[in-house]
Amino acid sequence: MLRPLHDGVLVRRVEEESVTSSGLVLPDTAKEKSQIGEVLAVGEGLFTKDGSRRCPMRVNVGDRVLLPKYGGVDVKIDGETLVMFKESDVLALCQ
Amino acid sequence: MLRPLHDGVLVRRVEEESVTSSGLVLPDTAKEKSQIGEVLAVGEGLFTKDGSRRCPMRVNVGDRVLLPKYGGVDVKIDGETLVMFKESDVLALCQ
Amino acid sequence: MLRPLHDGVLVRRVEEESVTSSGLVLPDTAKEKSQIGEVLAVGEGLFTKDGSRRCPMRVNVGDRVLLPKYGGVDVKIDGETLVMFKESDVLALCQ
Amino acid sequence: MLRPLHDGVLVRRVEEESVTSSGLVLPDTAKEKSQIGEVLAVGEGLFTKDGSRRCPMRVNVGDRVLLPKYGGVDVKIDGETLVMFKESDVLALCQ
Amino acid sequence: MLRPLHDGVLVRRVEEESVTSSGLVLPDTAKEKSQIGEVLAVGEGLFTKDGSRRCPMRVNVGDRVLLPKYGGVDVKIDGETLVMFKESDVLALCQ
Amino acid sequence: MLRPLHDGVLVRRVEEESVTSSGLVLPDTAKEKSQIGEVLAVGEGLFTKDGSRRCPMRVNVGDRVLLPKYGGVDVKIDGETLVMFKESDVLALCQ
Amino acid sequence: MLRPLHDGVLVRRVEEESVTSSGLVLPDTAKEKSQIGEVLAVGEGLFTKDGSRRCPMRVNVGDRVLLPKYGGVDVKIDGETLVMFKESDVLALCQ
Repeated sequence: MLRPLHDGVLVRRVEEESVTSSGLVLPDTAKEKSQIGEVLAVGEGLFTKDGSRRCPMRVNVGDRVLLPKYGGVDVKIDGETLVMFKESDVLALCQ
Repeated sequence: MLRPLHDGVLVRRVEEESVTSSGLVLPDTAKEKSQIGEVLAVGEGLFTKDGSRRCPMRVNVGDRVLLPKYGGVDVKIDGETLVMFKESDVLALCQ
Repeated sequence: MLRPLHDGVLVRRVEEESVTSSGLVLPDTAKEKSQIGEVLAVGEGLFTKDGSRRCPMRVNVGDRVLLPKYGGVDVKIDGETLVMFKESDVLALCQ
Repeated sequence: MLRPLHDGVLVRRVEEESVTSSGLVLPDTAKEKSQIGEVLAVGEGLFTKDGSRRCPMRVNVGDRVLLPKYGGVDVKIDGETLVMFKESDVLALCQ
Repeated sequence: MLRPLHDGVLVRRVEEESVTSSGLVLPDTAKEKSQIGEVLAVGEGLFTKDGSRRCPMRVNVGDRVLLPKYGGVDVKIDGETLVMFKESDVLALCQ
Repeated sequence: MLRPLHDGVLVRRVEEESVTSSGLVLPDTAKEKSQIGEVLAVGEGLFTKDGSRRCPMRVNVGDRVLLPKYGGVDVKIDGETLVMFKESDVLALCQ
Repeated sequence: MLRPLHDGVLVRRVEEESVTSSGLVLPDTAKEKSQIGEVLAVGEGLFTKDGSRRCPMRVNVGDRVLLPKYGGVDVKIDGETLVMFKESDVLALCQ
């Protein structure tokens, strides 16, 4: 499995419309990439420059997250395209 | 519901003209987006790099805020377009 | 009323020529925006990253300030265009 | 042998498809460079500015790593092209 | 009078050639702006981010300073064009 | 002789192919500059901003180093072209 | 005389070829500016942001220094063109 480094977050884009208990999160058009992702793996968090202290991750495996429209790095695993984001680029948790 | 990460602020643009007790805040032209938003959700605030201390948010749910003309990330929820801003990009509170 | 966040300064551009006790501050040409503004509201000042300490504002409500030629964000209130600047972009106080 | 400085990571791109125990990591097209690399050597890690403390490396010799699509510096050794990355640019470990 | 904020320096460009006791400082061509300025007012100096400590100014009222060719903000006072620079952009004192 | 300042490293590009005990480091094409350099002189290392502590150099006189393809400043000494790099731009030691 | 501020270094470009005891430093072509300069004056060094501590200069009056090909600010004094550099841009001492 991929284990992200630093504050990396590995997500699978969720194409279906229904996302949160309180509402539907819709892609702007059918052709755009979904901005909702399911978190598959997270890094251990960024360390301070001297390696002595670590900033814990706010995003956990299993979370549904709101992603920015652009950015991230595509990775193809088992024929499926996943995406790597930095936690600092993830916009929100969907709850 | 969407729970913003970091210093994120989720807002709904307020299209009506009347905003503050002391005055009207008007869009420049009818075609421009409103620069006034109603805050629907806020993040927990930015943490210092070692994760030990948190800078509290100045913007709270329910606040009306003055937004910059550009920037922010549109999110479509239940057919309505909301916007995510960083608190550091929010210009003012409308009181 | 608008209450600026962070180190925001809300100003009304002063179109008349006479500004200081010691001299006239003139716009370069009649068509240019005035670089003199009257301060209507100020933010509480920038906080350190952990939110523990605040840098007080040097600019106060009622001050006349020298503004850079470019920058700032226009806001239309009651039909009048005001401008938001960051204090760090304000050049000088007119006294 | 090359001994990377700072947080350098020397990798050999792995062309075969099978990478992790749980899945195949595939290049997007046959013509693209593999994003998987085998770590041949690592630096000692970045030092704080006064040289007193060192941030240990998270990536070790023998690790398989996920690389960004762009970046890195090609080095030709014994007719083989290897690549140097900074650890901060390495995306994930493949386990 | 204008009282610069932060590390601002208000200068009047000195058009005559003779500047220092040890030599003439000449503009490159007659058409270029003089790079020598007389300091009319200075700010109180930059503060640290928490507002607790202030870095004193090295440039004082009455100093003649060497200015960079570009930069600065023109201000017209009593029909005369003065210039605002940041102290960090001022190159040297003329003594 | 030239004594580099800060974290400067003065190198002579090594044109021959054989570099390390374990392998040949080859230029990509005959026309490209060699990426291997012999270190002729090094600076004393960067100081912290208050000048009180110094970060020791990792690169020493006599080392063979792997250089980035671009960057560095050419200097002609006795008809020979040498190059100045910052240590932070040197990629690896050849051992 | 000009007294540089901050970490400024005032230099006179040295056109003759012979520079160091161990070798000639030559301009690349006769048309290029010399990269060797004689130091005429130096600033007091950069201060930390709170003004409390100063980083001493490594370059002194009378030193011959290696300059980058680009950068610096020309100043004409007594009909002679001198150049101002920041010490952090000076590459090496010629000894």
